[in-house]
Amino acid sequence: VPSRNRSATKPARASIVDVAARAGVSVATVSRALRQMPNVSPATRERVMRAAADLEYSASPLAAGLVTGRVRSVGVVSAYCGRWFFAEVVRGIEEELRQCGYDLVLHILPDHARREQFFGELPIRRRVDAVIVCALPLVRRELELLRTLETPLALVGMGVEGVHSECIDDAAASRLAVQHLINLGHERIAMIGGDEPGASSADRPPGEPVTVPALRAQGYFDSLAGAGLEAPPGWQPDGGFTVEGGEAAMSALLAQPGGPPTAVFCQSDEMAFGALRALRRSGLRCPEDVSIVGFDDHELAEHLDITTVGQSFADQGKAAVRWLMPALDGRPRPDEHSFHPFRLIPRGSTRSWPAR
Amino acid sequence: VPSRNRSATKPARASIVDVAARAGVSVATVSRALRQMPNVSPATRERVMRAAADLEYSASPLAAGLVTGRVRSVGVVSAYCGRWFFAEVVRGIEEELRQCGYDLVLHILPDHARREQFFGELPIRRRVDAVIVCALPLVRRELELLRTLETPLALVGMGVEGVHSECIDDAAASRLAVQHLINLGHERIAMIGGDEPGASSADRPPGEPVTVPALRAQGYFDSLAGAGLEAPPGWQPDGGFTVEGGEAAMSALLAQPGGPPTAVFCQSDEMAFGALRALRRSGLRCPEDVSIVGFDDHELAEHLDITTVGQSFADQGKAAVRWLMPALDGRPRPDEHSFHPFRLIPRGSTRSWPAR
Repeated sequence: VPSRNRSATKPARASIVDVAARAGVSVATVSRALRQMPNVSPATRERVMRAAADLEYSASPLAAGLVTGRVRSVGVVSAYCGRWFFAEVVRGIEEELRQCGYDLVLHILPDHARREQFFGELPIRRRVDAVIVCALPLVRRELELLRTLETPLALVGMGVEGVHSECIDDAAASRLAVQHLINLGHERIAMIGGDEPGASSADRPPGEPVTVPALRAQGYFDSLAGAGLEAPPGWQPDGGFTVEGGEAAMSALLAQPGGPPTAVFCQSDEMAFGALRALRRSGLRCPEDVSIVGFDDHELAEHLDITTVGQSFADQGKAAVRWLMPALDGRPRPDEHSFHPFRLIPRGSTRSWPAR
Repeated sequence: VPSRNRSATKPARASIVDVAARAGVSVATVSRALRQMPNVSPATRERVMRAAADLEYSASPLAAGLVTGRVRSVGVVSAYCGRWFFAEVVRGIEEELRQCGYDLVLHILPDHARREQFFGELPIRRRVDAVIVCALPLVRRELELLRTLETPLALVGMGVEGVHSECIDDAAASRLAVQHLINLGHERIAMIGGDEPGASSADRPPGEPVTVPALRAQGYFDSLAGAGLEAPPGWQPDGGFTVEGGEAAMSALLAQPGGPPTAVFCQSDEMAFGALRALRRSGLRCPEDVSIVGFDDHELAEHLDITTVGQSFADQGKAAVRWLMPALDGRPRPDEHSFHPFRLIPRGSTRSWPAR
């Protein structure tokens, strides 16, 4: 066996294979001996301990993973990177994982090609003990592929039937935001929505999980219907969840025949930033001419004085880790939709109508 | 050997240990056989291949790592998460690593406690093949600890003598920003700077690596000196690289005796956002009353119409990976400071003085 040739000299960095070769036992036996598990005779354990000491070997979590099936890593998969909310989720996940001694392995799928590649190859197989999917609107086929990993799975920032999730009730949160505008006297209320990358809600076949943009749109339509208000076609342009998209969508709204809306519900603060800019470029004022509500309480929303719906993404990320950990110790907890708190944060971008 | 008991039945997920047990050879031999390496007899190779096929085993990168010493992961260590520029760097690193088949393992050290814990325990030992440190102002002791990992090391967004780095020439970029204000006729130019978390420049003992804030301050002082302009004490408040800090620093500048500056160089766009808000709250206009220059070209800088210095953080992250990869294949390249391009992006927040 070639590896035995190495037992005579001390390698630069000893592995469990080196220890096994030096002790003349299998890698599995080394692992069992070092972890004080049964089925290892005192004499064998002694030989393994001496070999490990001779080689200055300390148990590597990866080597342990070969026997336990655990690698002490959790995969985080998201469509986004470079967005504020994503960084907040990752901050929460990383902090909690670290306390549990787990690594965070990151996979970003920003476009269709990366997404196809990821679900085709599943590079997280055998590389992670659990998976957290963050703001990636999964279709059923993708969900089934993740299930083949046979590792615990949690979603953050969105919910899918039959999968554990940490999120807010997006429909209810949107109803709150739109009701705020209705309570202020607005009757002409538009929405800037958007599909998440790689998953146009319109293109999703029936039976696919409902997306966050669809839930937020549902809350908007429900609130208007409840107040007997109209939601004219053309008043729900797509802003693609970007500042630029929000600016273009607001410009489109201002060009609608029949006059502009007096209030706009934006499905994200970034789109609200863009909408504000479109107003300014058109010589309109916020809130005197048009009220704006955003969503998420982005770190700059306060500084731009935007009324919004606040939620803690970091808390949702931490909660996902806390849910996963018992499952990794062989004590899985049932899947559930764990709803987190949200709140309306009234600021200067909304005002009663007609302006007093 | 206990693991041999498992060879009779097919385990839920076969590991290299199972294959070794079934073939009756060592783990090292399985690894060599599957990787078509020499020193394995045809008969043994055949037995291993059959055992692997029987168990539907596919070579795990972790198992390979036990023999090769490679785990196909790169650690990314940063003080920040939740900041725009950090997310950009990570996006670039992740994209490039993925193309090379490597995982990104994230470590965030936002405060002194996490930092002490990380450098005390070095949880990346044996868990990564290389390390990228991003915007974490290392002290020499920390650098020495990272060196004990004996893995390739690259820095992004900052430079340290004797370590490979991908960054811009921060002093030159700051000179450019301040020279822009001087060229516009400004003579009363303040700076909002700041120390990075956990590393007050003032507290750093002599001989420690120079930090990015210190380099940017040097550029500011150099430009003023070159134009024969004064840099009065009290005109370089600390904004801590946050929006709130920038707002507080600008408020402090406006309260200085002798009248406020006519232009302010902010060491980051986030601080410029805060400075703008302080001006607005004081009833002052930008650029009519005070010109503002930011730094980094944050995604919202264009929308807030802020003159700034642009650089590509994603490109710096990608370049770090491209530099590391040959080293991981045993062909290390020499350390160098690889300087990336930067450019002044003039926008509406700066104007000639006196205002015409």
